[in-house]
Amino acid sequence: MNYLTLYKAEKAKLLEAEQLRMAEYAAKGLKLDMSRGKPSKEQLDISSSLYMELDPKYGFAGKQDYRNYGLNDGIPEIKKLFAELVGVEEDEIIVAYNASLNLMYDAVQRAMQFGIAGEQPWNRQGNIKWICPVPGYDRHFSVTELFGIEMINVPMLADGPDMDKVEELIKDPGVKGMWNVPKYSNPTGVIYSDVVVDRLAKMRPAAKDFMLMWDNAYMVHALYGQEEQANIMDLAKKYGNEDMIYGFGSTSKITFAGAGVSFIYSSKKNIAAIKKFMNIQSIGPDKLSQLAHYRYLKSVAGIYELMEKHAELLRPKFEAVAEVLEEELGGTGIATWTKPTGGYFISVDLYEGTAKRTVELARQMGVVFTGAGATYPYKRDPKDSNVRIAPSLPPISELIEATKIFATAAKIAYLEKQI
Amino acid sequence: MNYLTLYKAEKAKLLEAEQLRMAEYAAKGLKLDMSRGKPSKEQLDISSSLYMELDPKYGFAGKQDYRNYGLNDGIPEIKKLFAELVGVEEDEIIVAYNASLNLMYDAVQRAMQFGIAGEQPWNRQGNIKWICPVPGYDRHFSVTELFGIEMINVPMLADGPDMDKVEELIKDPGVKGMWNVPKYSNPTGVIYSDVVVDRLAKMRPAAKDFMLMWDNAYMVHALYGQEEQANIMDLAKKYGNEDMIYGFGSTSKITFAGAGVSFIYSSKKNIAAIKKFMNIQSIGPDKLSQLAHYRYLKSVAGIYELMEKHAELLRPKFEAVAEVLEEELGGTGIATWTKPTGGYFISVDLYEGTAKRTVELARQMGVVFTGAGATYPYKRDPKDSNVRIAPSLPPISELIEATKIFATAAKIAYLEKQI
Repeated sequence: MNYLTLYKAEKAKLLEAEQLRMAEYAAKGLKLDMSRGKPSKEQLDISSSLYMELDPKYGFAGKQDYRNYGLNDGIPEIKKLFAELVGVEEDEIIVAYNASLNLMYDAVQRAMQFGIAGEQPWNRQGNIKWICPVPGYDRHFSVTELFGIEMINVPMLADGPDMDKVEELIKDPGVKGMWNVPKYSNPTGVIYSDVVVDRLAKMRPAAKDFMLMWDNAYMVHALYGQEEQANIMDLAKKYGNEDMIYGFGSTSKITFAGAGVSFIYSSKKNIAAIKKFMNIQSIGPDKLSQLAHYRYLKSVAGIYELMEKHAELLRPKFEAVAEVLEEELGGTGIATWTKPTGGYFISVDLYEGTAKRTVELARQMGVVFTGAGATYPYKRDPKDSNVRIAPSLPPISELIEATKIFATAAKIAYLEKQI
Repeated sequence: MNYLTLYKAEKAKLLEAEQLRMAEYAAKGLKLDMSRGKPSKEQLDISSSLYMELDPKYGFAGKQDYRNYGLNDGIPEIKKLFAELVGVEEDEIIVAYNASLNLMYDAVQRAMQFGIAGEQPWNRQGNIKWICPVPGYDRHFSVTELFGIEMINVPMLADGPDMDKVEELIKDPGVKGMWNVPKYSNPTGVIYSDVVVDRLAKMRPAAKDFMLMWDNAYMVHALYGQEEQANIMDLAKKYGNEDMIYGFGSTSKITFAGAGVSFIYSSKKNIAAIKKFMNIQSIGPDKLSQLAHYRYLKSVAGIYELMEKHAELLRPKFEAVAEVLEEELGGTGIATWTKPTGGYFISVDLYEGTAKRTVELARQMGVVFTGAGATYPYKRDPKDSNVRIAPSLPPISELIEATKIFATAAKIAYLEKQI
């Protein structure tokens, strides 16, 4: 039933029915959390034995004793493994502590404070701007906001960011960077097409100190088997443009969200420069976590195998949400949503002006969603339409209930405005 | 034999003898490293089983599942433990990743970029200065140097930094901070006296955004039983001055130098402010490392017990070095050295103008010492006299040989200049 074409009286009747439903849900006293892309207990259980790889009987030495100081850019074995995974050389990667977000923060902080690519520190360059494909990842936006960087929205299309807009924006030398989650993008699940990756790799921004932030957070997080994507570093090297690329990844959603291993990859020149800073900043990363991870993951094939186990747990959850959304909102005309083949999110676009109210109504029924607007810079969704659904954590029964509640909320939010 | 009062001919004869000895050492082709305060294999072996505490049979949950996101300021159990260890409340501490140096770097970086105590960012305040007790810790000096902060030497006396000088310097509003290793200071082994701690705690620097960096790196690293020291936070609170204190510590030399757990402690107000930044900077620390540490260390008593095992391994090493130094350089008048009761270093003051040459001669005999000057800001020891000896890593037999080589080098360096 298309809600948009109903008569007012029909809408009023529908609203009444949905409000009744809401009262029933509210009475249940539910407490469900769909707000963050957290792995479920079952997913975490997959790798529970990881630290048993540090049984003293296996020893702690590779190139040196990993319990001691040294090797500030990570242990060689895991550098080699992740270099192979992302398709770079071993001197184009640093393996660090558990949070890739911190690597991104540090990259921006160094550019602000010390400058990059031989240019002045951004702190001394006046107004710094940044390209943000939207909807996008809230924690990316928080970092650039913290540093007072002006964020410019660019629409995320089905094959990646609107490249015509991006190519126009980079003519401004004040535009210094761009956030990207190139595969199973957060929250849309979009996979940047090879054409988009190529256009990004060959960009010639007016700013010589432009950072193309390539947060490969979900590079192997496929739901239906691994999918290929053009390698940004290969292409950038072809165009002599590799100094522009700052790649990131982690095992947060491969092993443990709270205790993984992260890495940054870039040109040899950039990695050498970053190492110099890191040698002053820290005595080095936790090498025993890296050793445990290396022994547990073993190889790129080992990682793919592990991700298939995650996919088995995640697939039914994504499919359950999709089914309920279709059942409840299909054909209503008041919502569209993504059908991702990987990643951690389903992105829903509701009727303009109803996202905030939908999230609030859902909250009243006991289900927490990511705050409406969170997927936009400054938490300002200009259409107040986007909501991110994170299906990974709750069990399927809860997920179905939470999605029904979401649909009820979305319908009420739309209908209320029409009456 | 007092070298200073010898006749020239006697000096020439002695030099010849030492040069012969040098040739013998050089012929041995030794390769010894006395440069860094690294724990020995035997010390690392003490805690080898630490990660077995993460056997899945024990579970991973406390307040929540520690394998998942959340608890950005550390798991409650270990916050409680370290809070008790340093004598603060649980909301006055954050337990983080493995490197306390990184916590210090971040603290300085935030002050530079964002400002602290409601003042302008240091980046916008012109020339920023910093008090550096010397000799001191090279990695501290590297951090302030990186940010372009002007470092001012203050002599380290037997009971701590020269407080008369410190109290004079803080009248300058450009002086924004001070490095301290208050217990078993690096490299002198000095324990700040309670009087000095009190004078520091009640300072009223002209700069409202002054950071008293309190790097408690060796707080429990006693060689002859735990020694008491006045608690800086208690005193600062008494004077209403706790916002000035930034305390740090880690288990780098309790469990694993390459895989410990670190913490920062300060006033409630500062810790709350730092948490806000950390929530943007990172998805949180490695909580499984924290959990393993908590289960392994158990209590403050457990930490003291563990440190006694380290002391048993370290004591004979410190004593062996002290014995050789006394044997070789005692009464020569060309060297004085510290007799620390804890920490990781022995600090030697050689005859003025001979430290660089001594380190170079030792290198030629196959022993690497920390570069002369490294214990001073900008690696400039104005007297070219201080050398830091790190006795922890090598076995005793090597240690004895390396110290003899050091003495030979010191004698040659002195005698060469006299002929």
